[in-house]
Amino acid sequence: MQKIELANKEALRRILEAQPVLVDVKPAHEVIKGLGRNVILHAGPPITWDRMCGPMRGAICGIAVFEGWSAGLDDAAKAAAAGEFSFHPNHHFGAVGPMTGMTTASQPVMIVENSAFGNRAYCTINEGLGKVMRFGGNDEEVLARLRWIADVLGPALSSALTLRGGIPLKGIIARGLAMGDEMHQRNVACSALFLREIAPALARACTDRDTLADVLSFIGRNDQFFLNIAMAMGKSMTDPAGGIEASTIVTAMCRNGTDFGVRVSATGDRWYTAPVEMPVGLFFPGYSQSDANPDMGDSAIVETIGLGGFAMATAPAVAGFVGAGSASEAANYTNAMYEITEGRNPEWTMPNLDFAGVPTGIDIRKVLQTGKTPVINTGIAHKEAGVGQVGAGVVRAPLACFEQALSGVAESMGIS
Amino acid sequence: MQKIELANKEALRRILEAQPVLVDVKPAHEVIKGLGRNVILHAGPPITWDRMCGPMRGAICGIAVFEGWSAGLDDAAKAAAAGEFSFHPNHHFGAVGPMTGMTTASQPVMIVENSAFGNRAYCTINEGLGKVMRFGGNDEEVLARLRWIADVLGPALSSALTLRGGIPLKGIIARGLAMGDEMHQRNVACSALFLREIAPALARACTDRDTLADVLSFIGRNDQFFLNIAMAMGKSMTDPAGGIEASTIVTAMCRNGTDFGVRVSATGDRWYTAPVEMPVGLFFPGYSQSDANPDMGDSAIVETIGLGGFAMATAPAVAGFVGAGSASEAANYTNAMYEITEGRNPEWTMPNLDFAGVPTGIDIRKVLQTGKTPVINTGIAHKEAGVGQVGAGVVRAPLACFEQALSGVAESMGIS
Repeated sequence: MQKIELANKEALRRILEAQPVLVDVKPAHEVIKGLGRNVILHAGPPITWDRMCGPMRGAICGIAVFEGWSAGLDDAAKAAAAGEFSFHPNHHFGAVGPMTGMTTASQPVMIVENSAFGNRAYCTINEGLGKVMRFGGNDEEVLARLRWIADVLGPALSSALTLRGGIPLKGIIARGLAMGDEMHQRNVACSALFLREIAPALARACTDRDTLADVLSFIGRNDQFFLNIAMAMGKSMTDPAGGIEASTIVTAMCRNGTDFGVRVSATGDRWYTAPVEMPVGLFFPGYSQSDANPDMGDSAIVETIGLGGFAMATAPAVAGFVGAGSASEAANYTNAMYEITEGRNPEWTMPNLDFAGVPTGIDIRKVLQTGKTPVINTGIAHKEAGVGQVGAGVVRAPLACFEQALSGVAESMGIS
Repeated sequence: MQKIELANKEALRRILEAQPVLVDVKPAHEVIKGLGRNVILHAGPPITWDRMCGPMRGAICGIAVFEGWSAGLDDAAKAAAAGEFSFHPNHHFGAVGPMTGMTTASQPVMIVENSAFGNRAYCTINEGLGKVMRFGGNDEEVLARLRWIADVLGPALSSALTLRGGIPLKGIIARGLAMGDEMHQRNVACSALFLREIAPALARACTDRDTLADVLSFIGRNDQFFLNIAMAMGKSMTDPAGGIEASTIVTAMCRNGTDFGVRVSATGDRWYTAPVEMPVGLFFPGYSQSDANPDMGDSAIVETIGLGGFAMATAPAVAGFVGAGSASEAANYTNAMYEITEGRNPEWTMPNLDFAGVPTGIDIRKVLQTGKTPVINTGIAHKEAGVGQVGAGVVRAPLACFEQALSGVAESMGIS
């Protein structure tokens, strides 16, 4: 088992030594190979139309209309059922997406480069809260916002990043953790710090004052703006840790609203899947647990690098928001995650735990030994298409994924 | 003593019901009556040139050159010694200023209006960190920055505020407390949230793109930008609580580097003074306790409304910065301040203390009963003129001020 220990140390080293930098924003088809007509990337492990949940179907129909592949939502649903669209996980294309996680040709994606390892990862731009496509929204308001993001916001961010150079992300995360962000359900600090970083360059890059004001306002009103940046960062940090022989460290966790998928370093791109669980949390006025869709999104990539539910101790304000109990209970979540991780990130510390580093590098052996599954802070979508977000909560990765993963790793090592 | 209890409840009510709004930025002489040639407002209670400390003298000389009243620093010192300048506390003019606290005719001041009571308070714009006038800096770099603030930044902020309307401040403070700010030595969250609020209006108000970029960059690079806004807010909140017969609630605490001054509601504008104490803290590389100037500035107005050292529990990151011990010890400071205050602010809560409100309304009787003096988080200036900030630390309000204040209140009630 010495071999596993060494392999896991190497996986953790690669995660910790990452140097993620937000370098540019480009239309997805320019940077992600294979994104053409009728190709739709979604959150989570692979899934077919017939097994997709309500909000995922809603988003599929919406994005087909947005891309001009279908005349309307009904046409899109027929085309989807007829097999006209090609569905693939974001993770198969170096990308990640929150909740439904739609990534298609015309949408701008943020590009995070891990300069220590030379790899890149992609994520679309966060749309804001409420009725948005990532939560299954698909009406004209939702599509108009996506058009503005593609036509105005994406190019503005690209120009600004080109002008000022890329924005290193690790320092922003470090500050955000000291300001109560866990980078999954709470990103207000990092979103504001990001705006501080980019605003002067946006001012120089935008020639039209009203456009500039709109861009600053859009970013400034969205407390979750930074989530998608954190996700692309997470993907860029975990990809180099994949494919290490005998390593039992998790390199991806994601959900499509039907299945939960886990990847483990030793077995590279292979998925271990099990039915997703139902988030338990708090609901917006007028909604309840019975409206909730099961767990969804690639956003659990942030837990994979020690943030989100793993960093709950630093975010007592979010503990209340996701229904995780009182502020003083928040530390319990983080302390439990120390039991299933390989180490701590000395650059990302939590003042509330006297500056202990976040628990990093989920070891599937420890998950199985302790029976403690990774805790994920998540948004909750309405189970029907077109409604949007109805709450936020906490959910667990299903144990069955880790059981299968251990078998997979054992098999890869010739133990069976 | 029923009378005192009722009076103190009324004082606390007035503090808690304040509605501070940042409404405009204007040259000081336009809004503060009596600010003319050779009139210099300073931090703390009244003081004469011969008793002023090094950095206060340095700032006096610098601001006289800035205003064009003296040809150089030496000339200014001679003019000051010859009695040519008229010195007054900021507090006598509805203003407050951090550290040396220079307020003169040409400097732009931020105007905070307490819309619940109709009063206004003023504070200059924060210059940034290091060698700046509030820490006694007075060379050409310092004066050039003040000129840019007066000529560019002040007018830009004024135009933006006029365009968007005033910015209510209580909500920003509430969010900042949940993000680790205590609004005295840590203002990074509120500074960033303020930039989010004002940036779109700045974009619409500034006609020149480079100027706009400079303004956004100046605010964005200064983690203490919000301090001066918080101070004007504090002054606007405590002024209406003054002059309540029999109330033993503190309405102002301030220091001029030589004397500490306290005002108590029952006796209105009267000062109770005692020698300031020496802050104990951490020093920037190359400096030590022997370089430190005694306690200075009107900034303790934030402690008067329950922030700063009183809210240490919510700011474990600042506890380390000011040398107040480990993060887990930070709550001890706040808990002690509950023993000397009239109540808690239900709108300003601290997640780390399970959302307890900040301790508000210092009761001089409780200070004397417990022997626990108000704790203040403070910047530390070099004791010589012209150097600037050398550290940050914690300091106590001297007990003697509170002893005198109790006598003063007793006297005002006919008890002697």
